[in-house]
Amino acid sequence: MTFFDKLRAAAVARETLLCVGLDPDPDRIEGGAAGAARFCIDVVGRTADLACCYKPNAAFWEQYGPDGWKALAELRAAIPGEIPVIFDAKRADVPSTMAAYARAAFDVLRMDALTVHAYHGADSLAEATRHVENGVYVVCRTSNPGAADLQHLDARGEPFYLQVAELARRVNAAGNVGLVVGATAPEQVAKLRAHSSLPFLLPGVGAQGGDLEASVRAAWNGDPAGCLVNASRSVLYADDPGRAARELRDRMRALVTIAA
Amino acid sequence: MTFFDKLRAAAVARETLLCVGLDPDPDRIEGGAAGAARFCIDVVGRTADLACCYKPNAAFWEQYGPDGWKALAELRAAIPGEIPVIFDAKRADVPSTMAAYARAAFDVLRMDALTVHAYHGADSLAEATRHVENGVYVVCRTSNPGAADLQHLDARGEPFYLQVAELARRVNAAGNVGLVVGATAPEQVAKLRAHSSLPFLLPGVGAQGGDLEASVRAAWNGDPAGCLVNASRSVLYADDPGRAARELRDRMRALVTIAA
Repeated sequence: MTFFDKLRAAAVARETLLCVGLDPDPDRIEGGAAGAARFCIDVVGRTADLACCYKPNAAFWEQYGPDGWKALAELRAAIPGEIPVIFDAKRADVPSTMAAYARAAFDVLRMDALTVHAYHGADSLAEATRHVENGVYVVCRTSNPGAADLQHLDARGEPFYLQVAELARRVNAAGNVGLVVGATAPEQVAKLRAHSSLPFLLPGVGAQGGDLEASVRAAWNGDPAGCLVNASRSVLYADDPGRAARELRDRMRALVTIAA
Repeated sequence: MTFFDKLRAAAVARETLLCVGLDPDPDRIEGGAAGAARFCIDVVGRTADLACCYKPNAAFWEQYGPDGWKALAELRAAIPGEIPVIFDAKRADVPSTMAAYARAAFDVLRMDALTVHAYHGADSLAEATRHVENGVYVVCRTSNPGAADLQHLDARGEPFYLQVAELARRVNAAGNVGLVVGATAPEQVAKLRAHSSLPFLLPGVGAQGGDLEASVRAAWNGDPAGCLVNASRSVLYADDPGRAARELRDRMRALVTIAA
């Protein structure tokens, strides 16, 4: 079963587009790396019927050093088998090195999907996409203010991020490529959806102030795997993570019909 | 002492521009992650008077999973204190996440410098460059054939990689920013040197076929910290890594005068 098939099945079964970001903060969670794993596994237990995906971000685990990678592997093993997991690591390097990143993500950590940068070009992306059972999300338009610095530069009469989307399309022969598009910029989400039929991963809802409703309306193309909305801190550090996740899911259900 | 001061001092003391990439290959090295650390520490011992920098690439250590990060930390601790170490991890994410990557690299792993992607823009890069004692190399023109796909796109009448170099200059208020420029493309090295006075890290010599002589001639601006040439596989897997490193160093000495 491919990543997007698994994601679609989980989204339909739970009627949700919610991805929960598992990004531990040492200032908020006691007990070091082991405490971070316990905390996140607890959140998974409270949200597993409300989310169709989980997304640990590598940076937050690497803050704990080698113990963080150990905790990340434990966390991965604790997530129910029918829910896919995206390793949000934004890796990118020359082809031989990209092959090692893909092996680390897919073969060693057993992640279902990986986020990557496109800057190195098609030959590097191919080292990730050749893992056809796994998903590869190409970072396209990010959720931070600095996104405009390079991503909005005019390239061949279009914003540069559309060239990135076009490159992602080119390496999608196996149908396992998606785009990361920040929910903080619904206008760019709409522009990208007009140019691309690839599945979107939409981070930035919650603490980053992204607009869930506007982003889902702009991204939705009828495919339950094509409009994955991520919330991290607003779920993880809510007084009641289950209630926070349920509210987000209900807002999604009010917007679109999540069905096969 | 800042990263570039440390690099300059090591380069002048040893009269070398050589950086040795420490990228273990599980197919060539026995003993798993611990074997990789032993192997690389042995290479450090054979090359420490010939190199002014070491550069472990994260991907090759992450292939070993959590044990790989542990081995990487051991390797870091085994490198002589006067030789700086670049964590070649090509990290990039939104500012709050970039801050975590910088903490992982500089505070946890105790690396002297980090390679990063610029795609997220100035606000993200600032989270790395605010560690003013550490170095930050921005990936600018890569050493693989796919580099042309996005990096050479015309943006405002110039190749896109020049816009990346301009952004790197903008975030260099503390003087701790350099550029990664592949030695496989001496023409682009020269073009970048005409536009940028930032220190260059030149990977791609050796197994990737980069042109050491042409790249050093194009990059050299008189600063012993401004033209760092990396070789990985061609030193690491040579019958005699010390001899391979000495040959590279001697070719550099024949080209330029490495002095304060």
